[in-house]
Amino acid sequence: VRKNFNINELDRISIVGVGLLGGSVGLALQAAGFSGTRVGVGRRASSLDRALKADAVDETTRSITEGVTGAGLVVLCTPIGRFKPLLEQMAGALAPDTYVTDVASTKGYVVRLAHRILPKTVRFAGSHPMAGSEKTGVEFSRADLFERSLCLVTPISRTPKSTARWLRGFWESLGGHTLVLPPHRHDELLARVSHLPHAVATALVNLSARSAAIDLAGSGFADMTRIASGDPAMWTEIFGTNRSAMIKAVDQMLVELKRFRDRLDRDDERAILNWLDAAKTTRDGWISKRYSKRVWPG
Amino acid sequence: VRKNFNINELDRISIVGVGLLGGSVGLALQAAGFSGTRVGVGRRASSLDRALKADAVDETTRSITEGVTGAGLVVLCTPIGRFKPLLEQMAGALAPDTYVTDVASTKGYVVRLAHRILPKTVRFAGSHPMAGSEKTGVEFSRADLFERSLCLVTPISRTPKSTARWLRGFWESLGGHTLVLPPHRHDELLARVSHLPHAVATALVNLSARSAAIDLAGSGFADMTRIASGDPAMWTEIFGTNRSAMIKAVDQMLVELKRFRDRLDRDDERAILNWLDAAKTTRDGWISKRYSKRVWPG
Repeated sequence: VRKNFNINELDRISIVGVGLLGGSVGLALQAAGFSGTRVGVGRRASSLDRALKADAVDETTRSITEGVTGAGLVVLCTPIGRFKPLLEQMAGALAPDTYVTDVASTKGYVVRLAHRILPKTVRFAGSHPMAGSEKTGVEFSRADLFERSLCLVTPISRTPKSTARWLRGFWESLGGHTLVLPPHRHDELLARVSHLPHAVATALVNLSARSAAIDLAGSGFADMTRIASGDPAMWTEIFGTNRSAMIKAVDQMLVELKRFRDRLDRDDERAILNWLDAAKTTRDGWISKRYSKRVWPG
Repeated sequence: VRKNFNINELDRISIVGVGLLGGSVGLALQAAGFSGTRVGVGRRASSLDRALKADAVDETTRSITEGVTGAGLVVLCTPIGRFKPLLEQMAGALAPDTYVTDVASTKGYVVRLAHRILPKTVRFAGSHPMAGSEKTGVEFSRADLFERSLCLVTPISRTPKSTARWLRGFWESLGGHTLVLPPHRHDELLARVSHLPHAVATALVNLSARSAAIDLAGSGFADMTRIASGDPAMWTEIFGTNRSAMIKAVDQMLVELKRFRDRLDRDDERAILNWLDAAKTTRDGWISKRYSKRVWPG
């Protein structure tokens, strides 16, 4: 945890959207010794009740303006599709100098939206805590969800350094490790290691379903396609808000697979062996580094 | 286990190649009550010694002709690249009616090779026990490796029914479940659910390595690319001996990904959602069936 960071400088933190991530922010704040009020904002009374029961928040409200009033920090944890109306509604109710961030998986679109809608007096930067699970709902929230996970903070050039620094302190106080990078760079890199793999897993499942092939699929296929069991609506949003980086990543994949196809066609065993070797070396090195650091994206 | 199948009708079983799979055949035979002699054939004295020490075989020899002499069953467990010389060397030493099979992951090439080289008096059909591990070496052999795993037996049209039946009985006596299908069909289906996924995982790793992207990769990426840490030499052989089915599978993947790219380009959220939904439905259904049956490919 950064020096000079003290979460108890704030009296009130507003968590907008109390699902797995929002609930985990609440539980982690409590575990980190936050003694102020955690306010849960949601649309449905039932999910707010469940959040209270899970002890993820101290108070709840269905009114976004009421929910953010007096808050020193607002964390947006809803699906991206809800961001625009929520930002518009909260804009007038935010006190100057309020910290605002979000936990969405794509950053360019979200950061542009927030800067367009929020008053200049507010201290905003995007966040992407790389933690989560296939599960959804506050019941699966965990106080240690961010522990040793990587949290990306994505200021833009005109974001004050102090805002990004404070948000790093925030995520680090919840147990995470932080890394700062610009929104477009975030989206480019995540397209390659997260969004493209998701699309590829989806393609593999849909191809195998067209024949009896899937009945012969083994544990390798199960591991490889696990992410294809993720929430289709959430992934439609991710793809939709990261279109240009995704198109670039898909194009690179098409080139890579075409090159492999040509090597097969020429029966170029040497080139295929080298290609497989390079991947094994990269992955084995990455895995051992990942475990030796004991810090990793979730 | 099939009725009328009795492994102890044989006095001597020859296991050619005593690595993870060959060693597991030996251990599983012992567990199944085989009271005859398990002969291990290998090139290196050191691996034969390790196989003896692991109790995977009873006797060893570095001579293939000596190793198969008097055997009622020969199981080829070496890399595919060794098959041609081994089949040529053993051809003259096999007694009439000896059962011969193999455990290779591609079947068309191997089955053609065996039928061309082995005498007509021998009872051959290909096998593909879908069990194994990223690990190699007799030290990782297990008596229960084939337990509840799926073993594919791939006779051709002129293979006597009794040969395929006997080989099914053999794998079932080791705890496996069996399925019979023609070699070309095997290769087509495995291309989709095993060989193409391997190529795709390799492509993902190699793409991510070209930037800093891999440092942001999470557990989804780790699961998805696990198979890219497999043995490059073995996978070069698999691709090389299943070229036409692989080219077809890669072409289908290229079409599927191009279609997705076009949907991204048109911002067709509805089509993307349906595509993701279809994959989730297929995979969730497959996973629940897989676990309810409690029988699966390894």
